[in-house]
Amino acid sequence: MTYCLGLRTKAGLVMASDSRSNAGIDQVNICCKMHTFVVPGERVFVLLSSGNLSLTQSILARIEQEFHSGRGLVDVANFYDAARCVGRHVREISALDGPFMERDNIAYAVNFLLGGQIRGEEPQIYMVYAQGNPLRCTRTAPFLQIGESKYGRPILDRGIRYEDTSLEQAVKYAMISLDSTMRSNVSVGPPIDLIVYAADELEIRRYRRFSEPDTELSAIRSSWDRELRQAIGALPSITFEEQPPDRELGITHTFFRGL
Amino acid sequence: MTYCLGLRTKAGLVMASDSRSNAGIDQVNICCKMHTFVVPGERVFVLLSSGNLSLTQSILARIEQEFHSGRGLVDVANFYDAARCVGRHVREISALDGPFMERDNIAYAVNFLLGGQIRGEEPQIYMVYAQGNPLRCTRTAPFLQIGESKYGRPILDRGIRYEDTSLEQAVKYAMISLDSTMRSNVSVGPPIDLIVYAADELEIRRYRRFSEPDTELSAIRSSWDRELRQAIGALPSITFEEQPPDRELGITHTFFRGL
Repeated sequence: MTYCLGLRTKAGLVMASDSRSNAGIDQVNICCKMHTFVVPGERVFVLLSSGNLSLTQSILARIEQEFHSGRGLVDVANFYDAARCVGRHVREISALDGPFMERDNIAYAVNFLLGGQIRGEEPQIYMVYAQGNPLRCTRTAPFLQIGESKYGRPILDRGIRYEDTSLEQAVKYAMISLDSTMRSNVSVGPPIDLIVYAADELEIRRYRRFSEPDTELSAIRSSWDRELRQAIGALPSITFEEQPPDRELGITHTFFRGL
Repeated sequence: MTYCLGLRTKAGLVMASDSRSNAGIDQVNICCKMHTFVVPGERVFVLLSSGNLSLTQSILARIEQEFHSGRGLVDVANFYDAARCVGRHVREISALDGPFMERDNIAYAVNFLLGGQIRGEEPQIYMVYAQGNPLRCTRTAPFLQIGESKYGRPILDRGIRYEDTSLEQAVKYAMISLDSTMRSNVSVGPPIDLIVYAADELEIRRYRRFSEPDTELSAIRSSWDRELRQAIGALPSITFEEQPPDRELGITHTFFRGL
């Protein structure tokens, strides 16, 4: 399993990924799911991947080859075309490997998040599906997730606002979202790769890998556990009724012995 | 969809359920998923249901009939047998309706949580699967969930401890878990039914239904949103590296124009 997320606020982007790869529960490896493609001062791409590792490796290998030959992501005119470029490689590998997998009932399962910026445009994030089609991250739904997305979603739903959330806040939301997911699903695991990208930087200036043990990650965890308990403690209390509604509502059944 | 949960601490139990029932997205109803069966001073059962509503209704109807005739849950010798009693009804309806559903490729999907206490035993919670087999809630994993369980799990993973968590705290964790799930999945919805059961009460004394709008639920939500922002703000900050690791590690690709 995998968990990757991309947060998009007015101030910029936070892109983060776990590093656990598993084929069944007895073949577990560390695998970096974050790749960056930079033309300094001009364009920055952070590509996060989930799904079948053999497929994402092939797709990445071709994106890399193209990039270093001065085509593909180096060359696309805008961010939408960049997402289409990733989608094109997804489709090429689908054409190459898909039929052989289908024959053995193995799903062609890959997903990508492409975040970054091309000079002259806003920072953006796209999801690219296994079918190659792109989905853009909007201001009203300012984050995208791939992989094991549910555990880490509530904290983002409550916290991330395009207009208001600072990058310093966003990075903390991302860390809690990832940490919660790792805690609830053992197939999502460290190291965590994290990039914070402020609008118009057009290069990568803030990168962090959290391996285990990591003193800052431990400090975040224990602080969060402590703060969460305080937050629960501070919630207003609830008034109760002494009885559930009567039988009319179908909820309550009482049996009196000897009646 | 549905979300029901049962928390078990040394002090007692918290049982809670949402009330949304839907068949597709254009047939949405309110449906209470919490039913109580009480022999005052002797035994208390809180039964929460998820899955196909036609099936859970049939199973409940039979459990109710049996109960009011002085058999079944009124009569079982211990809580394990109570869970087996629910499982027996699950299997009877499976035998009655299962083959006709199977013929049309409809899954026999039901799950129950049975919480409560029989005098002389500890309070307990069991899950009963669609196959009728029971699973007991243990001290080391002190909660059980059915339905849409992932969104509401991280807060429980961080908060609920069998020995330490008070019922007053547990009820707040349950509310946040349910509220987070309603926020992330529209097919989980109000009213919320909630029962707090202290060990050895052997009757129901604290019941609460939160409809929309509910001033206490709104107060909990806004308090939580505020507290969560403070908690995020209080997290220690992160130090970054200026660059991701170099190409050897496969993460970084840089293209210099004109080289």
